[in-house]
Amino acid sequence: MKKINLLFLLSILSIFSMAQEKKEFTLEDLIPGGSTFYSMQPQYMYTTWWGNHCLETTVDTCFEINPQSGEKTELFTVAQLNRWLDAKGDSALFRNGLTVTFPDPDRPYVAVTISGGQASDHTNMRKYILLDFKGGKKVWEQEYPADASNLDRSSRSKNLAFTWQKNLYVIQADGTRMPVSTDGSNDLVYGEAVHRNEFGIDKGTFWSPDGKQLAFYRMDQSMVPDYPQVDINTRIASTYSCKYPMAGEAMHKVTIGIFTPATQKTVWLQTGDPTDRYFTNITWSPDNKKIYGIELNRDQNHAHVVRYDATTGQRETVIYEENHPKYVEPQHGLLFLPWDSNKCVYQSQRDGYNHLYLFDLKSPCDTSEQKMSGGGSCREHVKVSPITVGSWVVKEVVGFDVKEKSIIYCSNELHPLQSNLYKVKVTGGKRTLLDDGKGVHNADLSSDGSLLVDMYSSPTIARNIDIIETKNGKKRRLLSSEDPWKDYNVPEITCGSIKAADGKTDLYYRMVKPVNFDPNKKYPAIVYVYGGPHAHMVEASRNYFARGWEIYMAQKGYLMFILDNRGSEFRGLDFENVTFRHLGVEEMKDKMEGVKFLKSLPYVDANRLGVHGWSFGGFMTTNLMTTYPDVFKVGVAGGPVIDWQYYEVMYGERYMDRPQDNPEGYKGSNLRLKAGNLKGKLQIIIGYNDPVCMPQHSLSFLRACIDAGTQPDFFTYPGDEHNMMGTDRIHLHERITQYFEDYLK
Amino acid sequence: MKKINLLFLLSILSIFSMAQEKKEFTLEDLIPGGSTFYSMQPQYMYTTWWGNHCLETTVDTCFEINPQSGEKTELFTVAQLNRWLDAKGDSALFRNGLTVTFPDPDRPYVAVTISGGQASDHTNMRKYILLDFKGGKKVWEQEYPADASNLDRSSRSKNLAFTWQKNLYVIQADGTRMPVSTDGSNDLVYGEAVHRNEFGIDKGTFWSPDGKQLAFYRMDQSMVPDYPQVDINTRIASTYSCKYPMAGEAMHKVTIGIFTPATQKTVWLQTGDPTDRYFTNITWSPDNKKIYGIELNRDQNHAHVVRYDATTGQRETVIYEENHPKYVEPQHGLLFLPWDSNKCVYQSQRDGYNHLYLFDLKSPCDTSEQKMSGGGSCREHVKVSPITVGSWVVKEVVGFDVKEKSIIYCSNELHPLQSNLYKVKVTGGKRTLLDDGKGVHNADLSSDGSLLVDMYSSPTIARNIDIIETKNGKKRRLLSSEDPWKDYNVPEITCGSIKAADGKTDLYYRMVKPVNFDPNKKYPAIVYVYGGPHAHMVEASRNYFARGWEIYMAQKGYLMFILDNRGSEFRGLDFENVTFRHLGVEEMKDKMEGVKFLKSLPYVDANRLGVHGWSFGGFMTTNLMTTYPDVFKVGVAGGPVIDWQYYEVMYGERYMDRPQDNPEGYKGSNLRLKAGNLKGKLQIIIGYNDPVCMPQHSLSFLRACIDAGTQPDFFTYPGDEHNMMGTDRIHLHERITQYFEDYLK
Repeated sequence: MKKINLLFLLSILSIFSMAQEKKEFTLEDLIPGGSTFYSMQPQYMYTTWWGNHCLETTVDTCFEINPQSGEKTELFTVAQLNRWLDAKGDSALFRNGLTVTFPDPDRPYVAVTISGGQASDHTNMRKYILLDFKGGKKVWEQEYPADASNLDRSSRSKNLAFTWQKNLYVIQADGTRMPVSTDGSNDLVYGEAVHRNEFGIDKGTFWSPDGKQLAFYRMDQSMVPDYPQVDINTRIASTYSCKYPMAGEAMHKVTIGIFTPATQKTVWLQTGDPTDRYFTNITWSPDNKKIYGIELNRDQNHAHVVRYDATTGQRETVIYEENHPKYVEPQHGLLFLPWDSNKCVYQSQRDGYNHLYLFDLKSPCDTSEQKMSGGGSCREHVKVSPITVGSWVVKEVVGFDVKEKSIIYCSNELHPLQSNLYKVKVTGGKRTLLDDGKGVHNADLSSDGSLLVDMYSSPTIARNIDIIETKNGKKRRLLSSEDPWKDYNVPEITCGSIKAADGKTDLYYRMVKPVNFDPNKKYPAIVYVYGGPHAHMVEASRNYFARGWEIYMAQKGYLMFILDNRGSEFRGLDFENVTFRHLGVEEMKDKMEGVKFLKSLPYVDANRLGVHGWSFGGFMTTNLMTTYPDVFKVGVAGGPVIDWQYYEVMYGERYMDRPQDNPEGYKGSNLRLKAGNLKGKLQIIIGYNDPVCMPQHSLSFLRACIDAGTQPDFFTYPGDEHNMMGTDRIHLHERITQYFEDYLK
Repeated sequence: MKKINLLFLLSILSIFSMAQEKKEFTLEDLIPGGSTFYSMQPQYMYTTWWGNHCLETTVDTCFEINPQSGEKTELFTVAQLNRWLDAKGDSALFRNGLTVTFPDPDRPYVAVTISGGQASDHTNMRKYILLDFKGGKKVWEQEYPADASNLDRSSRSKNLAFTWQKNLYVIQADGTRMPVSTDGSNDLVYGEAVHRNEFGIDKGTFWSPDGKQLAFYRMDQSMVPDYPQVDINTRIASTYSCKYPMAGEAMHKVTIGIFTPATQKTVWLQTGDPTDRYFTNITWSPDNKKIYGIELNRDQNHAHVVRYDATTGQRETVIYEENHPKYVEPQHGLLFLPWDSNKCVYQSQRDGYNHLYLFDLKSPCDTSEQKMSGGGSCREHVKVSPITVGSWVVKEVVGFDVKEKSIIYCSNELHPLQSNLYKVKVTGGKRTLLDDGKGVHNADLSSDGSLLVDMYSSPTIARNIDIIETKNGKKRRLLSSEDPWKDYNVPEITCGSIKAADGKTDLYYRMVKPVNFDPNKKYPAIVYVYGGPHAHMVEASRNYFARGWEIYMAQKGYLMFILDNRGSEFRGLDFENVTFRHLGVEEMKDKMEGVKFLKSLPYVDANRLGVHGWSFGGFMTTNLMTTYPDVFKVGVAGGPVIDWQYYEVMYGERYMDRPQDNPEGYKGSNLRLKAGNLKGKLQIIIGYNDPVCMPQHSLSFLRACIDAGTQPDFFTYPGDEHNMMGTDRIHLHERITQYFEDYLK
């Protein structure tokens, strides 16, 4: 008996000590910006392509990986690089991992960037240097101002374009530097991304394939007012320029120039009056002679794919048009087939889901109007053939397999929450799955598309990296990360679906249960929300895409619930545009289906429901708190939209039209009008210098609450913009956590 | 036995029901701006002087009061006024009590102001009308723009000066209108109070006694930066001009002009270079020929009383000088004796307390330097004789008794917390107490000083109004207000003194005990603080000057403690200027003596101490929370100073010198440097458009806390300035209360 008791005791002690051994997370572990955040992430390896050679760069060595055997061969070391550079003081550059590229697929060149002393006008300079890692010597270098931005280098011509001190410059391969513009200012912007980075725009310069001509954006925003942003760090607080076109108000005007360094001449595309139009997705023809772009009217319901003569700037022809009663949103330019310069790939949601279409630019076609999904229509001025078809979404084109004449892409064909790698024959449309058919995959393709590096995770895989032969799908494992949280008390993370408020659409949720979950207890629950377009929160990646803060809150005893409502991405056009002209309404209906589900769970305390979200999620949080004041007890709304008339033209008018054209819609989503409903505790938090959701949103809401006699709380991060980064992000999450601890627990 | 028990029961029930019957205060009852605030104040009567006739104006009738008998005789009614005006639509003007004045002591004229239609240039106008209430007719009127500001009318000449659309104008008695300036702007200000209303300045125009010349301020502030104040109520938020000279930075330049309407010419006082000097306390000589002013150097430690020739603008002579190693602060101009235009009264703290001195402008004197209290010195260029002397303070000169050749004034001679009415013979200095020798008195004197209306309260008197014959002190009661709170459960309010941190100086406190106080319980206590110069919080008026919020918090179960530390007003120069060059240090030492006293009380819970204050009190609150993080658990700091370099030149440099001259002092009082000490809950609240303590104070503190990893709370009232008014003030106090309820209770 004594023995048994002892064993029993020991076993209890052992269970106890095992539980004890499990570590607890800190915010520093879980929030980007935390001191231990990266060491708590799955392992990673840095691979890159040199043509079709797969390279791995470690902190001090560059290896080549044999794709068949996985064997690594040393190519060069950082010590060698430094010797070749004869860089005495610069070796520190490489301390935190190699920042090297391999720009020339045909030559053994590695490119590095180092600080490069001062120019004669005292400008601090940087140097871009090509080193021959086989010959072991410097082969070329290019100097440019250290504070230049928007660097865009043609690896073909070695011409470099960049913006500096408000103007656009080019430095040629021989070092000749020339201004492309001279009258740049806050009002007149050259060579930068325009239209507030909507419509897939992420840069403002576009080298022709041969690198001899530079297409660039010029944006006249003199008619756009500055939002008064205040810098409190000057001796006496001061304002700085922050152009912000609000919905329904004056919009900037964009034009496109073609600069030829050889002649130092600029030709302007003759687009006609650029007033109230968007010019997007600039693409060069493979022969360097034409420029393609997509032109969209301000109402964003009519897109033209247009061809220009790059030499004269003349508008030549429209090759394709799309209309939609809600909106058309072109986000991808033409992608020319590497093996046929008369054909290109176009992405469109014309059939209700984003798919690939082949444009045959030389073939005749029927230009009559064709009906499309959702009441839209299109007009084809060139022959258009679908490449992919189905009730699923092409998420990303990875590239081409030149030998097989295939396109490699990611889609969610297998499951709405997944992202899998496929190749599809351009002719015939035969699709082949390249990966394991699970989880969420990202790929990096070699020059000719014969090999790809597949980085992926799934709810049960922390991170794997494989190298795959696209020809036959043969895989070799390069990395299999161990679970970085294996010693921690990780909460149970599950995924499921409920029906949307329309009664038919599947919506996916993630649930993070409190650690040491006891189904007989009642837990406070927090709904984390975003809910807007261009985003999703639940996917079949590691931990179902759970954010670190959810883990932290589960550790503190909260049940976390995250639902992708209608209006979010990757579920097709109808799923997304159901919110048109009344943002917030359908989204909230779906969120309340989620709440209904939560309340049905015996372990959720329906009297202790919280909600938190940022940006569109801040809008949702404030909206939920004021629309369902008896449901949610505590909310934290970050950088919220309060009134869409204070949001910008491009994003805002796409979904809401102009205030003067949709007064009811703007009124219905104006949260100031609901300020008097507030009953629970709501903390609004903004970056004091937010250039995205201007402080006017939150401040006008505070004013409305004060006038209505309700009591929101408020905090602001001076100097921060739309999101808090670095250590401020830790501070923020400590703050958000404390608010729920004070009022929801 | 049964009977006794029943009686006992009845008596308990009776006590219980009596307690029950007592009403509870709401914030609306106690806070200015509340809907029931005025009905909860002691009764009042509106008296005014027409020469030596004492008048009372009620909502519909004007009476004359017989000072001997107290009998009232009807003079006229509002209905009569309206008939005389033939004002059909204007009777509404008088609905809320008469807004009438009696500008001419020798004629039965009543003056009213009504809206006056539109001028030919569409400017909305107002009319100032004199009515003969004996003759029953209109006798004169004057039209001026409805949006004019700084109205200054000479009752003698009937000339009106006013500012309008950034310039200064005069309208003569005959209606002729003329601009005094034409180049007014945000940079160049005419006819307004200058030097940010410091040095007793509260207006910018000064008519000569005969009303034929107008002295006025001109302030060039083009060199002073605008603090970026943001208006969120425009379609897109915008900035507006808010000139703010910060300590150590460029200061505006002030000059003084003399405009003569008859010639429409302006003469400028030849002050020499006005850079970095203050021009204050403009006074005309009784013969209309001279202008006296006080000139103070930027360091504020050397004041000159100077005489100018008003006709030529020439600087004639210095009549008096004062130096002090800390600062000199002239707040009152010369006051000429009505019976001797060669003599005037001057107020000075030269002997350590504010007292009255007689300047005999025509008598010879010894101009050698004389030592003063506290290391200062003075130089008399005219004969100076003290009128009042003692270790107490003359608070206010009420006026002159012409017949008795006396000055009527208020002082705290009887007790530091009191304010009593005295008359003093200009010759001989014999003082006579005019009031009851208790409480806090305010007086309004008749034309010749033979009668005065004495309005007063004391800890036991809600409000009395007496009429007093200054000759013999004979009083007649006009009003004795009943206690407006007699039906309410009013907390016990007491007053006492403790020793300052210097071990010798008496400091006075007020304590408001929780309602239904039980000495055997432990209560949370809140220290309400101000602590800065030019203010006091404890006096022997009604409820010892308790603020409504203290009553409210006592009702909620808090003990409130309010202490006037060294640095506050009415206790003499040494008491005030002990804080010189290190604001906050001595003040906090004294506050901690108060805390020591609080902790010694058995019914105070030392673990639940809170602190709240606004402006300088916000500085004190933040300072106490970060200097004694283990003493105070919860604080609310309103509109705080955080760093004196962000405060303005005039007030700031008086106490702190320039940042470049006192770096250690500025460092020691820079609360950003203590941000990391914060442990308790501290909420900072500011008016978003505060033009006094600029938002840069609080925002820079938030930034410092974020960087240091501490968690203050924050709230802001968009559109509000340094103090919240009206319903916002109710909202604010609800907010402050809730914070203590959430975290201190």
